Amino acid sequence: MISAGIIGATGYAGAELVRILAGHPDVELKTITSRQYANDNFADIYPSMTGRVQLSCREYSLSTFISNKIDVAFTALPHKLPMEFIPGLLDAGVKVVDLSADFRFKNVATYEEYYQPHSAGDVVEKAVYGLSEINFNDIQHASLVGNPGCYPTSVLLPLIPLVENRLIDLDTIIADSKSGVSGAGRSVSLTTHFCEVNEGFKAYKIGSHRHTPEMEEVLGRVAGEPIRLTFVPHLVPVTRGMLTTIYAKLKDGLKEDDIRGCMLDRYSSSPFVRVFPANKLPNISYVRGTNFCDIGLKAEEKTGRLILISAIDNLVKGAAGQAVQNMNIMMGLDETSGLCNNPFPV
Amino acid sequence: MISAGIIGATGYAGAELVRILAGHPDVELKTITSRQYANDNFADIYPSMTGRVQLSCREYSLSTFISNKIDVAFTALPHKLPMEFIPGLLDAGVKVVDLSADFRFKNVATYEEYYQPHSAGDVVEKAVYGLSEINFNDIQHASLVGNPGCYPTSVLLPLIPLVENRLIDLDTIIADSKSGVSGAGRSVSLTTHFCEVNEGFKAYKIGSHRHTPEMEEVLGRVAGEPIRLTFVPHLVPVTRGMLTTIYAKLKDGLKEDDIRGCMLDRYSSSPFVRVFPANKLPNISYVRGTNFCDIGLKAEEKTGRLILISAIDNLVKGAAGQAVQNMNIMMGLDETSGLCNNPFPV
Amino acid sequence: MISAGIIGATGYAGAELVRILAGHPDVELKTITSRQYANDNFADIYPSMTGRVQLSCREYSLSTFISNKIDVAFTALPHKLPMEFIPGLLDAGVKVVDLSADFRFKNVATYEEYYQPHSAGDVVEKAVYGLSEINFNDIQHASLVGNPGCYPTSVLLPLIPLVENRLIDLDTIIADSKSGVSGAGRSVSLTTHFCEVNEGFKAYKIGSHRHTPEMEEVLGRVAGEPIRLTFVPHLVPVTRGMLTTIYAKLKDGLKEDDIRGCMLDRYSSSPFVRVFPANKLPNISYVRGTNFCDIGLKAEEKTGRLILISAIDNLVKGAAGQAVQNMNIMMGLDETSGLCNNPFPV
Amino acid sequence: MISAGIIGATGYAGAELVRILAGHPDVELKTITSRQYANDNFADIYPSMTGRVQLSCREYSLSTFISNKIDVAFTALPHKLPMEFIPGLLDAGVKVVDLSADFRFKNVATYEEYYQPHSAGDVVEKAVYGLSEINFNDIQHASLVGNPGCYPTSVLLPLIPLVENRLIDLDTIIADSKSGVSGAGRSVSLTTHFCEVNEGFKAYKIGSHRHTPEMEEVLGRVAGEPIRLTFVPHLVPVTRGMLTTIYAKLKDGLKEDDIRGCMLDRYSSSPFVRVFPANKLPNISYVRGTNFCDIGLKAEEKTGRLILISAIDNLVKGAAGQAVQNMNIMMGLDETSGLCNNPFPV
Repeated sequence: MISAGIIGATGYAGAELVRILAGHPDVELKTITSRQYANDNFADIYPSMTGRVQLSCREYSLSTFISNKIDVAFTALPHKLPMEFIPGLLDAGVKVVDLSADFRFKNVATYEEYYQPHSAGDVVEKAVYGLSEINFNDIQHASLVGNPGCYPTSVLLPLIPLVENRLIDLDTIIADSKSGVSGAGRSVSLTTHFCEVNEGFKAYKIGSHRHTPEMEEVLGRVAGEPIRLTFVPHLVPVTRGMLTTIYAKLKDGLKEDDIRGCMLDRYSSSPFVRVFPANKLPNISYVRGTNFCDIGLKAEEKTGRLILISAIDNLVKGAAGQAVQNMNIMMGLDETSGLCNNPFPV
Repeated sequence: MISAGIIGATGYAGAELVRILAGHPDVELKTITSRQYANDNFADIYPSMTGRVQLSCREYSLSTFISNKIDVAFTALPHKLPMEFIPGLLDAGVKVVDLSADFRFKNVATYEEYYQPHSAGDVVEKAVYGLSEINFNDIQHASLVGNPGCYPTSVLLPLIPLVENRLIDLDTIIADSKSGVSGAGRSVSLTTHFCEVNEGFKAYKIGSHRHTPEMEEVLGRVAGEPIRLTFVPHLVPVTRGMLTTIYAKLKDGLKEDDIRGCMLDRYSSSPFVRVFPANKLPNISYVRGTNFCDIGLKAEEKTGRLILISAIDNLVKGAAGQAVQNMNIMMGLDETSGLCNNPFPV
Repeated sequence: MISAGIIGATGYAGAELVRILAGHPDVELKTITSRQYANDNFADIYPSMTGRVQLSCREYSLSTFISNKIDVAFTALPHKLPMEFIPGLLDAGVKVVDLSADFRFKNVATYEEYYQPHSAGDVVEKAVYGLSEINFNDIQHASLVGNPGCYPTSVLLPLIPLVENRLIDLDTIIADSKSGVSGAGRSVSLTTHFCEVNEGFKAYKIGSHRHTPEMEEVLGRVAGEPIRLTFVPHLVPVTRGMLTTIYAKLKDGLKEDDIRGCMLDRYSSSPFVRVFPANKLPNISYVRGTNFCDIGLKAEEKTGRLILISAIDNLVKGAAGQAVQNMNIMMGLDETSGLCNNPFPV
Repeated sequence: MISAGIIGATGYAGAELVRILAGHPDVELKTITSRQYANDNFADIYPSMTGRVQLSCREYSLSTFISNKIDVAFTALPHKLPMEFIPGLLDAGVKVVDLSADFRFKNVATYEEYYQPHSAGDVVEKAVYGLSEINFNDIQHASLVGNPGCYPTSVLLPLIPLVENRLIDLDTIIADSKSGVSGAGRSVSLTTHFCEVNEGFKAYKIGSHRHTPEMEEVLGRVAGEPIRLTFVPHLVPVTRGMLTTIYAKLKDGLKEDDIRGCMLDRYSSSPFVRVFPANKLPNISYVRGTNFCDIGLKAEEKTGRLILISAIDNLVKGAAGQAVQNMNIMMGLDETSGLCNNPFPV
């Protein structure tokens, strides 16, 4: 059994980690931390877990993680805190999956432009970007994984095979994303007030969302040249789920089947990516509560454009699920361990 | 491994059975039937199951169930059909859990008053009412279980301990229930049209819902005398979940702690019943996707009334989950097998 | 034209007052106040009002109300503040409709038990309880109206005719209410976080909600004797709407038609109360955005119980709409003026 | 007073016409028809209208429209039926606003490619495309208006000013639309079943939606050259509302302010178009229940793309509201008559 700890267990991503790890056959969840709820029982904060999780939240301390012989720590904190905690954990031999943005960027300057000064720049180069299907081999040997943002996961999985194979014009990429409200976290604000969200739909942070440089850095690395894409996030009045519609010009002469073939090939050994056949399109309801990324696509002849649709659960494949998938890969477990719950019919 | 079959697998209760049984460690789901979708892949009807369930739907035939050596069959059909199919299955040695109303009543005349003529009255006496926590012992030896209705499950679990122990006045019971829309099934009708339900809330079938005689028969049997209760169902604009608020006069001198003590005692070895402490109240979101029945309660001194609140997922503890729980009990498995998925934090 | 001002215009009830008064044919809305948004344009706080309302919010000052020659002021503030502001307004000859609890109670001791010390007890006796249909005559001559709570409105309108006529047993009344989320106001808290409410349903404050003594005081006055009722509020995941299901024992020999007749009679000249015929039941969607109170009812023979169902929009008949109806009555306008917008089909 | 009739009054667009016309100060709604509900009271089909609308539905007959001296008829029927009824109405001197697709196209061949053979091709040339703000002058003199589709309304209003002034590259236009469920109509189907829609989000009919040729014909006429755009509709789990995100390449050197200036100029005398300032973005909740079309925009420097966001209520500006606006213009009334209800704060 692997001993695991979660730092920041009471936000939505942290609580989703608790859900998954508490049912993981190869993991013992030993310690969970929370500043806000220190000394509270997890099941008092999340009553759904009554009778299922007996843990209490503690303030984080490195020494506890060491004395508990934690093998792997998940940091589910706002950015900035992880870069303070993680160097100590790594020095103590604890592997880390960080769900914040702190270790997603290779280019520290980009990170600093969009977030804040980085205090652990030397650790950055050790970190592997945890897009599990793409960086599987590097993740196997990583001690620190920077878990991707939810939007980047939904944008990159469908795009990377096409960029790798140069099947689309790289300067025509537009990603129109729609996210459920849990992506905004559990902090209270007017933005997440039921009455402000319910029966509404809006775009936000057009051209300024911090997930854009994350996507551009990863795509640029794959392409071997800088990529600039247009990214517009929208808020859907549902709790979970993210659907991204991507537009790009196809290279001349390519047909829908070529694209689908490329995609099927790329993900032939990826159990969580489901490439849909012609005329079958993803729906966030098909992936709710699961680690799947569903991909559908359509080539439009009259305009020469490709339309890609991806769907994930933002809290699972977009956060906690992919984090556990990365842990599985780091620890030599089956990639799907603990992530095999069946989806609900409705 | 137990071989299982589902007759009527494409309604919501049937599909929920597929979800649970396809992940059940002790069961092989061998055959599923559907009139409407005969020869279709289940994953084309429920795309969420793509890659998880490979079965196709077939028309029902007894001979297939026999040749497939099915140990246990689940009938998730509208009432009337089960009473046609089940006698043959029983004769062939197949155990049956029936999710319709056909085998819930001991009193055939009551059934016939509220439903239609019963064509298998002789089988009725073999059937055990599948309220798992209450009839555990009888279910162990049953070949046929009549799985309770969703409303009766939510009403009976909190009431039975109090009726057994005569803690309330039996002629003062009122049950005000609120159900999610999936309880109405997957058939299309204006009643379940998104725009007619969304942002709405209503009562329906006041004093005439067919689950009322079911509750009254069971409670009457427990009490040893006829019981008449007032039952009013309401429709909540959510997909899953049922919350019932029950009102009754407490016998003189009883305190809230007496009631809670009785309840805790009665369900001390029932893993799916969670009796909440003082001032902690159930929410359907705490049980969504699980087989739990959560119970909260409050004694109101000024009126001498007890208020009981129960919450279940109508498709799980109210249908497919309890059916699998009953199967587990019938087949000598652990009661919780296949039903241990953790609840979601949101 | 009547000059009106709103003190506390940016909460949901206040903003609903702005919506109604800005479209009222006999009213000029001259001034609106807000502590939180002082000096902001109302249309920046509520962008839906862009191009419709040009007012900016100001800090409240009595002198502004006087210099603006305000005829009637609406106070849509948390309780406590109104009792500080209202005496000055009354002294200056401004009529007031107060949407808080401060002037709803005749018995100051009851108010003080459930809220806080009352600093304007001498003004209390001038106040008329603004249940428009019941206290129409007194409201006509009032200078101060204490606008009823949303729950009391939904409970009292169906009950009062029956209590007046002694058609039910007064010690058997149970009110099971279900409210939309806007009833909790616009303040941010985990309780109103979209993800905590969506797909959920719960009871809260059983036996301790502060609207209970308000109902009991009014009913007791009507009955001429103390009344104790059981009141349980629930939260429905919709923005607007409140449905209350009331249970009571019918006096011997009474039939459903007797009750309906009494109700039709009582409300024959009340344009906003719609008493439904047999087998037609209210739905909050039928009254959304309107000042209607719909009432349905069913007598259950086997138990001798009456079931009453009422539906209102908690922000309209439950708050701002009834406040404007009261103003209309106070100012000698047609009761329905400014409140005649048609309901939406969906 | 203008005498109006509605043919097909019980679908959602028809019922919304009833709502608006029953409150229109210059209109008497004299007759409403329905095949499905012939002889039923409208208020029994839509109980929200109890006490507000006294009309019963009738089977359509031309002679009734003539004997009732109907000035203007609204046809809110599935396409095909309008082309059968409308020639007779026009011959009888009745003006017509048709909400179907039958009279939206100038090019009958395009209509026939996407719909069916056209039986009233000679009437087509008389019809004016009812995008009120764009074709105001022609609508004034029209006897027949083809009311635009909801998607085209949301796409064309923001695009036309830019196409007219050649501010964008015409072969780079992408429209990513999101619609509420009422756009699918009131007919029952699995597609609109609450449980299939709720907590879901999907794209549908990619590259094949019949509103695409409608948009392309109108834009092509404005541009004076054929335009091909990519249009992808999505379904949002809300009852009302449509938000469209449009992407296009800006002509060199243009800034966001140039675009906003063009838009403000074009719509300076259009009371229902609200062009938002920088950094203020539309939300369908701001226009719910109103005839507004809100437009926000952002120029993205790094890619040279313009992002336009428009929001309408699909049943109002996208159907019944624009139809009444067109009638107002045809009959010489103020454009806003009957359409001035204030939006709700939530």
